[in-house]
Amino acid sequence: MRTLRCKASTIRELLKITQRPEVISFAGGLPAPEVFPVARFEEACRAVLEQHGAQALQYGPTEGYEPLRQMIAGNLARYGILAGPENVLITSGSQQALDLIAKLLINSGDRVLMEAPTYLGAVQAFNVYGAQFVSVPLDDDGLRTELVESALTPPPKFMYVLPNFQNPAGTTLSEPRRHQLILLAERYGIPIVEDDPYGQLRYEGDHLTPLVVLDHQNFRRDTAFTFGNVIYLSTFSKTLAPGIRLAWIVAPVEVIGKLVLLKQAADLHTATFNQMVAYEVARDGFLDQHVKLIRQVYRERRDVMLQALEENFPPEVTWTHPQGGLFLWITMPEGTDCRSLFRAALAEDVAFVPGDCFYANESPECCRHMRLNFSYSEPDQIREGIRRLSLAVKMEVRSKSPEVVASSS
Amino acid sequence: MRTLRCKASTIRELLKITQRPEVISFAGGLPAPEVFPVARFEEACRAVLEQHGAQALQYGPTEGYEPLRQMIAGNLARYGILAGPENVLITSGSQQALDLIAKLLINSGDRVLMEAPTYLGAVQAFNVYGAQFVSVPLDDDGLRTELVESALTPPPKFMYVLPNFQNPAGTTLSEPRRHQLILLAERYGIPIVEDDPYGQLRYEGDHLTPLVVLDHQNFRRDTAFTFGNVIYLSTFSKTLAPGIRLAWIVAPVEVIGKLVLLKQAADLHTATFNQMVAYEVARDGFLDQHVKLIRQVYRERRDVMLQALEENFPPEVTWTHPQGGLFLWITMPEGTDCRSLFRAALAEDVAFVPGDCFYANESPECCRHMRLNFSYSEPDQIREGIRRLSLAVKMEVRSKSPEVVASSS
Repeated sequence: MRTLRCKASTIRELLKITQRPEVISFAGGLPAPEVFPVARFEEACRAVLEQHGAQALQYGPTEGYEPLRQMIAGNLARYGILAGPENVLITSGSQQALDLIAKLLINSGDRVLMEAPTYLGAVQAFNVYGAQFVSVPLDDDGLRTELVESALTPPPKFMYVLPNFQNPAGTTLSEPRRHQLILLAERYGIPIVEDDPYGQLRYEGDHLTPLVVLDHQNFRRDTAFTFGNVIYLSTFSKTLAPGIRLAWIVAPVEVIGKLVLLKQAADLHTATFNQMVAYEVARDGFLDQHVKLIRQVYRERRDVMLQALEENFPPEVTWTHPQGGLFLWITMPEGTDCRSLFRAALAEDVAFVPGDCFYANESPECCRHMRLNFSYSEPDQIREGIRRLSLAVKMEVRSKSPEVVASSS
Repeated sequence: MRTLRCKASTIRELLKITQRPEVISFAGGLPAPEVFPVARFEEACRAVLEQHGAQALQYGPTEGYEPLRQMIAGNLARYGILAGPENVLITSGSQQALDLIAKLLINSGDRVLMEAPTYLGAVQAFNVYGAQFVSVPLDDDGLRTELVESALTPPPKFMYVLPNFQNPAGTTLSEPRRHQLILLAERYGIPIVEDDPYGQLRYEGDHLTPLVVLDHQNFRRDTAFTFGNVIYLSTFSKTLAPGIRLAWIVAPVEVIGKLVLLKQAADLHTATFNQMVAYEVARDGFLDQHVKLIRQVYRERRDVMLQALEENFPPEVTWTHPQGGLFLWITMPEGTDCRSLFRAALAEDVAFVPGDCFYANESPECCRHMRLNFSYSEPDQIREGIRRLSLAVKMEVRSKSPEVVASSS
């Protein structure tokens, strides 16, 4: 079976098609614009320009705006990540974090261990530097860590993992598997890049300990946060707004030092103005309060989508039940071609991203999945969109059912 | 003689030292904060957030915000650059433009032709991809194009040129040399990267035709702006503010298409908010009006510095007379070590960047130069700074004069 692996350009084209106004799109990974704190941004812009205009519009340090780095370090401490501002590098979105890490670690031909499926943006970032990928599948408890050890020979340069509400699958890496992964990283000396854009957007259950903390607790209890196997990434894109392009890398100071030199050559520094505005927006507890609002809005949308799936989709189709984040992952019966399903869905004016876009390596599995985003559309649109999608899905399922196959042969 | 070639980290350290409040620094390349249009930015932020808040804070297209690309294309037309918005890619500062071009064109070991001296940020950007450098010296008329042809075998991947008010030398490539360079590029099929951050900041004389236009006029008169040997770069950093990190690449659409894919992997897109704010700031003729103000302020500062040099510096020392831009370039007598001069200057509480920081290749020339910035300091500070610097310079010149050498031997 020839798999249709998704190129960057393909997904861009997909997204363009889905921009027709009559299309209900579950394709993007967009936050809901209704929850952008626009008024707070307006106040923050005014305060920053009136009080620190000359600084905000001037060149700034490559590492980032110091009060913002301090604030981020402070917030990380709540999750047990004992980092100081010197461990935090501000980047121009998480995509730049991935690019800089790839630039630092990947030489052409190096292997990188990826989840299957995984975040397309990471595949793109690592691809540029000539990475080869080793893919390990995931299930409802996230990366199947029992399959990881055999993928460590020959050793990959690092393992790229999204432990919380993974993009695209919506799954969360279970606590026992987190321990297992950290143990393997330590035993084989393979760094982990822990990408956590959605960690704060949990709608049920308890927060699970980040890999970077488990690494510290298990192997580096007596040292400061200066050594370790884990580089941790997060962002304001899902909690404040993606249009300001602000994210951060948390790593040992030696690693930060090297990344700073690469960032200096890549874009000098992230916009001073944006960093100061984000600091001003987030301060005095606003960020926490705002995250609570987002959780409430997205939890409802997730629930609406789950219920609509339950009501409309045929029993042959299954889906993940994400405890947070922006996405869920549909599994169609074997033999489904998600590309033809995509075209059928578009004919019904509803869109998703075909699953094959999220595999670093080809896999016979990859064509029977869809990624659905539940954060962007409003509840009524979600209900209507799932209803439309179910029409295309039912047709696809019927065409693949044994009776139909038998009668058509 | 062992040259002290400047590392990225060295210049960062230099700049940190020079931040002591009592130091008058001619070291940075900073615009004058007094001319930042802070009030206009405040209005623009309010307008953008009130009218387009959801769009401004959301993800945007990798190519950039369409009205901004159109505005830039429109402005380019005045200089004869007949580009459409499809030829314009918005980047996160010019540094990212250099990074993306390097990523596209340079394979490890490839040669790149550079001016000597040249912009350090370009050396850093190209270095990351394993570039080898071929350096061609410049004089008062810019790059010595009569030496370029012999540097084209074996062929470099491209030539990197700053034709207007070069950083660090302040020199401008003369009209005849522009023609000569374009001819060589065409004959040998070597692209030119024309970096033009300062082109609009001309304080005397007539605007000279950009290389990208000469290329078109001489060799592609009958075609639209779709083919050509020249990739053109410019930025808002020197005309609006560097703290918003906005610049652009102008290139044939095929090249833009490839750069878009690389930019997508590098940082997804440049902050939507910043692009919309910059558009709002620049529109309705404000940018032109504001550039006039900047020219007036910087012209005065340049004149003050030139006069102070004339009055204070010994006759053995020479300097360039920049027709625009932010920098001038001092040449000390042979045998000067600009590093020891730098330390002596710091003892007088004045700073500059030692010339050896601006050479892609080692050169016996590189240690007898200083780069002075005249845009950042106010006129009185410039006078006082040059007076202080002249003390260190005179000491250095005396110690190198034949009598002193003779008497000390």
